[in-house]
Order: sequence, then structure tokens, then C-alpha cells
Amino acid sequence: MSKTAKLVVNAIGRAVPTEVNGKPVIPYKGVGKHKPEGRKYGPRIASCADFPEDGNKLVQSLRQALIKSGLKDGMTISTHHHFRNGDLIAVQIFDIAKELGIKNLVWFPSASFECHAPLTKYLEDGTIHHIEGSMNGQLGRFTSEGKMKGTGVLRSHGGRYQAVQDGEVEIDIAVIAAPAADFFGNANGVDGPAACGLLGFALADSQYADKVIVVTDNLVPFPCVPWQIQGNYVDYVVKVDQVGIPSKIVSGTTEITRSPDRLLLAEMTARFCEHAGIIKDGFSFQAGAGGTALSIGIYFAEMLKAKGMKARFARGGSNKYLVSMLQEGLVDYILDGQTFDLDGVKSMRENPNHVNTSPFTSYNYHGKGNFASMLDVVILGATEVDLNFNANVVTHSDGLLLHGIGGWQNCLFAKCTILPVPLFRDRIPVIRDEVTTLCGPGELIDVIVTERGIAINPLRTDLIERVRDSGLPVKTIHQLKEEAEKICGVPAKQKFEKEIVAVVKWVDGTVLDTIYKVSS
Amino acid sequence: MSKTAKLVVNAIGRAVPTEVNGKPVIPYKGVGKHKPEGRKYGPRIASCADFPEDGNKLVQSLRQALIKSGLKDGMTISTHHHFRNGDLIAVQIFDIAKELGIKNLVWFPSASFECHAPLTKYLEDGTIHHIEGSMNGQLGRFTSEGKMKGTGVLRSHGGRYQAVQDGEVEIDIAVIAAPAADFFGNANGVDGPAACGLLGFALADSQYADKVIVVTDNLVPFPCVPWQIQGNYVDYVVKVDQVGIPSKIVSGTTEITRSPDRLLLAEMTARFCEHAGIIKDGFSFQAGAGGTALSIGIYFAEMLKAKGMKARFARGGSNKYLVSMLQEGLVDYILDGQTFDLDGVKSMRENPNHVNTSPFTSYNYHGKGNFASMLDVVILGATEVDLNFNANVVTHSDGLLLHGIGGWQNCLFAKCTILPVPLFRDRIPVIRDEVTTLCGPGELIDVIVTERGIAINPLRTDLIERVRDSGLPVKTIHQLKEEAEKICGVPAKQKFEKEIVAVVKWVDGTVLDTIYKVSS
Repeated sequence: MSKTAKLVVNAIGRAVPTEVNGKPVIPYKGVGKHKPEGRKYGPRIASCADFPEDGNKLVQSLRQALIKSGLKDGMTISTHHHFRNGDLIAVQIFDIAKELGIKNLVWFPSASFECHAPLTKYLEDGTIHHIEGSMNGQLGRFTSEGKMKGTGVLRSHGGRYQAVQDGEVEIDIAVIAAPAADFFGNANGVDGPAACGLLGFALADSQYADKVIVVTDNLVPFPCVPWQIQGNYVDYVVKVDQVGIPSKIVSGTTEITRSPDRLLLAEMTARFCEHAGIIKDGFSFQAGAGGTALSIGIYFAEMLKAKGMKARFARGGSNKYLVSMLQEGLVDYILDGQTFDLDGVKSMRENPNHVNTSPFTSYNYHGKGNFASMLDVVILGATEVDLNFNANVVTHSDGLLLHGIGGWQNCLFAKCTILPVPLFRDRIPVIRDEVTTLCGPGELIDVIVTERGIAINPLRTDLIERVRDSGLPVKTIHQLKEEAEKICGVPAKQKFEKEIVAVVKWVDGTVLDTIYKVSS
Repeated sequence: MSKTAKLVVNAIGRAVPTEVNGKPVIPYKGVGKHKPEGRKYGPRIASCADFPEDGNKLVQSLRQALIKSGLKDGMTISTHHHFRNGDLIAVQIFDIAKELGIKNLVWFPSASFECHAPLTKYLEDGTIHHIEGSMNGQLGRFTSEGKMKGTGVLRSHGGRYQAVQDGEVEIDIAVIAAPAADFFGNANGVDGPAACGLLGFALADSQYADKVIVVTDNLVPFPCVPWQIQGNYVDYVVKVDQVGIPSKIVSGTTEITRSPDRLLLAEMTARFCEHAGIIKDGFSFQAGAGGTALSIGIYFAEMLKAKGMKARFARGGSNKYLVSMLQEGLVDYILDGQTFDLDGVKSMRENPNHVNTSPFTSYNYHGKGNFASMLDVVILGATEVDLNFNANVVTHSDGLLLHGIGGWQNCLFAKCTILPVPLFRDRIPVIRDEVTTLCGPGELIDVIVTERGIAINPLRTDLIERVRDSGLPVKTIHQLKEEAEKICGVPAKQKFEKEIVAVVKWVDGTVLDTIYKVSS
């Protein structure tokens, strides 16, 4: 396809291509408006006759496993990101592909990190054609500058499961690095030197990929229990010296923010939840790790203690603060999608109420419901919000790809979605006439909390009513935008090239927005 | 189809139809010889837009759930057998179907019990067309007498998973009765008044059925943890007063046999294993519940204790004897497919090394390996064995359908398969020129242990060599047959009608044998 392909305007007013990387795509139709009509992808039927009866699927090296898996030009290779910035395997796959002279691979990670920056050389030399997954740091800049051969495709964690399940992405070879595995391919994330908690992001890959390779530095005798990845889906097992760098997988410490500005945002968000009647016995919440969101969890814990109440469940990313809530009985269950620190890993290993989940259970929009919409409140970040409450989470206002969507889009389905954001960053206002990249439709975003006031989506008359006499600084989003612009001035509209570098998919596989090459 | 359809002779010399219930079938080609070429069945893609955002899928009654699921003539309805003879739900489904005037349903249970005998009236009046699953007791007699409209299809537990996965059986509505469930459909078998341990036999049904109904008498707040069945596969949840009769689900007591004959068989089998070098540190075994097999587990425990060794894993059906081995450290893990008593249920609930498995992990032949072939030894029963070591487990020598295949066929893939059987039952010899119904190819059956001697399959020269100087009474299978016939006389060949009442499928979906109407 041409990267300046024909565009159509989708249901939320964004111009999007009708074809991406040579395949037709469906423009976004509105929340819940696209009804899938097909059937789930059917992987090839295997036979035990083709697998060793003693269960031993060990092969000598990753290279051998890739060759046995039939690695060839144009294939789609998937990896997971549970090792975060400590992943040692993804780059090795493409080192091997390069040595073998393979071209035009598609890399389909569940997320990418700075440690994957070496892959830019394979994007340059044609080993990798394009990435379907988050692009940030050097990969983001490379993509934003229009240097990637194909078009990037950004999906949420749930959207990634959906795309695999529905056959939109056919994975030829999944490489699942695992902190513990047996020779049959049963694997988990809780045991071993590279313990990362769980392997849920690799679930779809194990279920649907044509060939599945498990790579571990911690080979345990059969059975590897718990088997978060089931060996019955696995073709080959490889033992290596090291799959990940522990210190970069989990930090070991996750401190709450000390920034007074961020603490103010966290406190206002927690107070909003209290006044809106969200914090009650048996409620549920999700707040990401790091800075503001982390602090909110701590405020919630204090409020619950004071009220003598407990939450029924919290969704993780887990960290030591959430784990201590579980231990203190302030929450019955952690339903965890990824562990952010060693306390989270340990808790998942030892506490049966710290439950590992997957994008299938939590986020897949093409299932019979999912967990995300059942949450009473979710607290998320954003790079930009516009006057219609649409929000951006993947690009800076300068258009550079900043990070992936993660579970962000999926979480918007919670009963109340709150974005605590500063009114401006580096003197660039966060609230805009229009977001640079639209990642989440405003109709799903309920509350914007800034240090100078709280804007409630006019659609949520119930919330507006509930906090009317709370004394909270409730303002309109227009007022907030004006306040920011009084301080920072009206931002100039960013200019972009016509060339498309990536698209943003919605949770149902339709195309929500287009990301263009940044002007140099 | 005509029930006296055209027959072909398959690879093991049995005449089998090429069409069953109007659909073409493949004759058995030999162990590991049939290579599937298709793709796994793709269920319809669902959308969260069609499910309640708050996760509440409760409907008022099973009747309402069946109507909402679109129950209509000719559909295939599945149930599981974890409640064994205490199941209260399966018959209710067809009571409702009858009330609604629905005809020609196919019942696809994972097994049937005496409690399902009331279904004969629905087989008679045309509510049910035929059963694909085990038929025994009154249902067996009904079928054997040629009274069922369609042809019965007998599959192993693994073959049932394979048939669903491969789309040979398309389940329209799966009804999954559960000892514990939440309103979203997450369900397990370990909690509640009808606790049965696990729900693995319903896994395929949940994953592949068009509509899935969870029925429980123990509705717990979301999340129901552990979720052995994932709510993301579930359409409707129904709360009823009682799903099962606890005393009939699990007996509460499983006593070892007191019969000296059976104890002798058990002891000889255990001694054989010892002399053959099977019992060693880290070995693995599977022995069914009840009588002989149960006693063998106890001999194994004694031998391990005496040697200061332990087994790595045992496959269940679990019972108090296996649980005590786990507790005493004589085995590291129980990989359990069904719990046979309350000790098994409790252990599965509380001990993380008592792991619930499914026919997918343990038995599915159309996976990338399975657990069954990794076992060092499996001890199974049989109704008949022939001179080629072929065995029968579903019919009496008089041809009457006696019980289902269960995991029996799947277990034959173990490294050593031993059948301890009496030389004769009610003066009818067990070793025959030819089995009445062929359920397992002799090439997979290694040892026949009888009270008058042990026959080793000539293919297993290694085993013959290992026990040569053991003092065990090793004989040829011909010798054993002659000894029996000296006592009981040569049995008259049973006569059957030409009408086919059921077929026996092999683990790969091909047709292994044919079961005919018994002469009245």
C-alpha cells in the first residue's frame, strides 16, 4: 500500500486509511457499534503423533528452535513484555533472523521498551518490515520520522488479544520467554531468577500462534506448577543462560511521588471519589503504577481504614502498596495483569487471593463480557485531553510516538474513568481544542482532575449532581483550558506530513485514528 | 442414514461404518497414522456490546436461559459429569425441552450415570435423538436393544475434547452445573455444598459451545476464585436451589478392596512394576479409583517408603489414599482430572500441589503432546482382552453396553500400560480369541496381570528381559487363555444383529469399532 493511502472520516471525525500494510481495515464506527460477524481464528490442528511421547521438547538453541519453526521472510513473530526493560530475548530473535538472511518480518510485541532500541538497525536493513505494538523511545522517534517500511499498528492489550483471536493478526512464531518452564513447555512467571509474576500477555500467542517456542533460564522437572502457559500449546523449549535482567524487570522499589503537584492531583482524585460515593464497602478500583495513580491507592487505603470498609477487588499492575492492602484485609482480591515490583511477584506466588489474569479475562472486547467494565473506578493518565473529553495517550503534542496504549483503552469501560492530569507540562497545555492523536472517545471519559479544578463530562449528570455541594473545585473543561492558556498562551497547531506512520486501533479492531510523520 | 450402513474394514480388521448419524466418518488407520489437516473449530466472535457492562448475566431460571440461548429442534446440548451419580441438572434440561415441544436433540455428556436413566423416556418420545457419550445401566440396555433413534458415539475423555476442538461435534448449548459461581459466570468445583473438586470436563464446552449456561446453587460475589471455568466464555448464569446431591457426587469413603483375589492382582501388579524397574525416584503413575487399582497405589506407597523414594507426580482420579501420599511427601504433585472423594476435594481446594487438569492438558491427542504419554505406568481395567492384547472396556461379552471409555484410551499411551484382570468373571473367560468390542489396540497394551499369571506383550522385549529372573509367574497370553478355558470351557461366540447401535471412536476421531444390537 501507499503510506498516503485514501482516507475516510470515521464516526468520531478522524481521517483514517481503509487499508493498512496492504490489508483492508474498518474505520471506527462508535462505541459498541461494530458488531463482529465472523468466527474466531482456527489454528492448525496438531497431533501428538508429531510430538515426543516422553514430553521432552527441548532443542539446543533459540536459533535451532526458530529454524525448526520454519522461520522465513514475511513472518509475524510475537513476544511478550513481562520482562519490561530487562528483556534479553526479543533482540536475539532478530539477531538470528539477520544471520539467517531473513527479511520483512513483522514484530508483534505486547509492548516495547528502551531495551529494544537495537531493533532500529533491523528496521533499517529490512530484517523487520514493521512493528505492530507500542513504539516509544528510539523506536518511537524512528517511526515518527517515517523511517519504518510498513505502518505501525497500535493496539490496547485487549485489542491485541482480540486481533489474535479474530485472526486479524496471524502469528507465525510466538517466542515466550519464561522465568520457569519444564521440558514440555508448561511455564510460569512466579519462579526463578527472572521472576516477573505472570505471563498473561503471552496467552493469546500460546493459544493461536502456528509455532510456539518457550525460552527459559530456569528449567524445572515436569510438571512446572502453576502452568500459566500450557505446554500443550508449545512446540519447542529452549534453555538459555539468562532470559531477563532482574533489576530491570522489576525495580524492587516503587516509591510514591514526592512532587507536591502530583500529590495534590492524587488527593483531589481520591476526594472526588469519596464525594461521588464511589468509595464504599465492596467497591473495586484500578490505578496504574507510578506517581499520581500510586498515591491514589494510598489515599483509598486510608479512607477505607477510616470507614472500616474494604474493597472487593483491585485490578493490578500490582506493587507493594496494593499488596499491603491485600495483606491488611483492605481488599479481598488483586486481579493482576502484570506485577510492577518484587512484592507483587512474591504475593502472586504465595497468596491465592492475588490472582493472575490475562488480557482475555480482563480486556478482550470480543468476549462475552470482560472484567474492565465491572470496575467502579479507574484512574489513568493522558498526554492530552480535548474539549469533548477525547484523550491521547500515545503521542506528545509534537506528534512524536511516546508510548503504547497498554490497557488504557480497555479500562475506559469502567463505571467511572478519571484522568488526573496537570493543566500543563513544560508550559504546554494538556487540554486542547482537539487531541493530536485520539486514543479514547470522550463519551467514555468521565472526569478530568487538574491542580486547578475538576471537569466532569456533561454526559455524567449523576456525578455532577453528587459532588455539587462537596466544595470540590468543579469547573467546565472550557474553563480549565482557558486557565491554562492564560498562563502558557494558546499553543500553535502542530504541522504534520501527509505520510502515515501508524494507526491507532480501537478495542474492536476498527481504526480510531492516524499518526503522521512529524515534520523535521 | 441407515443403521445397517455400508461397512469397511479398518486398519485393525474391524468392520466400521463410513457414515454415522448422517455424517461421514474416517475409519481407524492405526496408532498415530491419521494426521489431521484442518483447523480448530472457530466459535462465533462475541462482542462485549451484547453483554451487560456490570457483568451481571443472571437470568431467572434454567428454562429462561435455554430459551434465551435459542433452544430448538436438532440442537446439541452438552453437560459434564463431575457430579457423577448426584447430577440434578441434566435431566431438568430435557424436562424443559419436552415441555417446550423440542425434538431430536443430541445429548453430549462427558459421561452418564444411573441418575440419567429417566432420559430413556425422552429417547423414546423423540425429545432426544441420540447420545454421544457413555451409555450404561438402563441407557446402555436401551441402546444395546436398538431402541435409540440415532447411533451412539463413544469417545474417550480426550477424544471428546478433540471432537469439540476439531469441530466434529458442534455444541449449540453447554450447560455447566457448578458448585460455585459468580454472576459473570466464573465458576469452580471446590467450594459450596455440591463441591466436586474441579470442572475440567466442561472446559471444551465453555471454550467452543455457541451458548454457555452456568447453573449454580452457590452464587458468590464476583470474583469467584479460582475460576476453573472463565466467565468470559459464559452467556447466562442461573441460580437454583441444588445442583447435585453431595452424597452421590463423592462417596466420602473409598475403601480398598477386601477381596483376596483382587488384592492378589494388586500385589502382583505392584511386584511386576518393582521388578521391571518402574518404581524409582521421580517416577509417575496413574491408577483409577476402586478395588484393584486403588490397592496398587497403596502398595506403591509402601514400596516408596521402604526405598526412601518419592514419585514426581500421580495422575488422579484422586482419593484419600493418593491425598495421603501427597501429604506424606511420597509424591510431589497430583495432576487431577476428577476427585473421587471429599479428601480429594479438600486437598484440591487447599494444596497448591494438588493441581486441577483438564482433558486438554491430559488427554487431547490433537494437541502438541499431552500428559498421558509421559506417565511411567498406568493401571487400568478391562472387560475382555484378546490374544493380540487388544482390549474392551465398554461392553460385556454379551454385547451389552456396560460403561463409557473415560480416560482409558488416552491412558494407553503411557510408557507401560498394565491391565490387572481376573482370568474369568462369572465363569466367563476374560481372555478371548477376539474382543467383542475393540477399544484399545494391543500394540499399546503391555502387560496383562491375572491371578494365575502375567502375560507380557511380545512387542515389549525390554519388559520381558527385565522380569526374566524375578520369579514372577510370567506366561504367554495363549497359556492364560487355555487355563481359563480349562476351567470355564470355551465360550460360545455371541451372536449379534446387523443393526449398528453405536460406534467406538479412537483418540484421533477415527472409528475403531462398531457395536451391534444384541439379540433378544
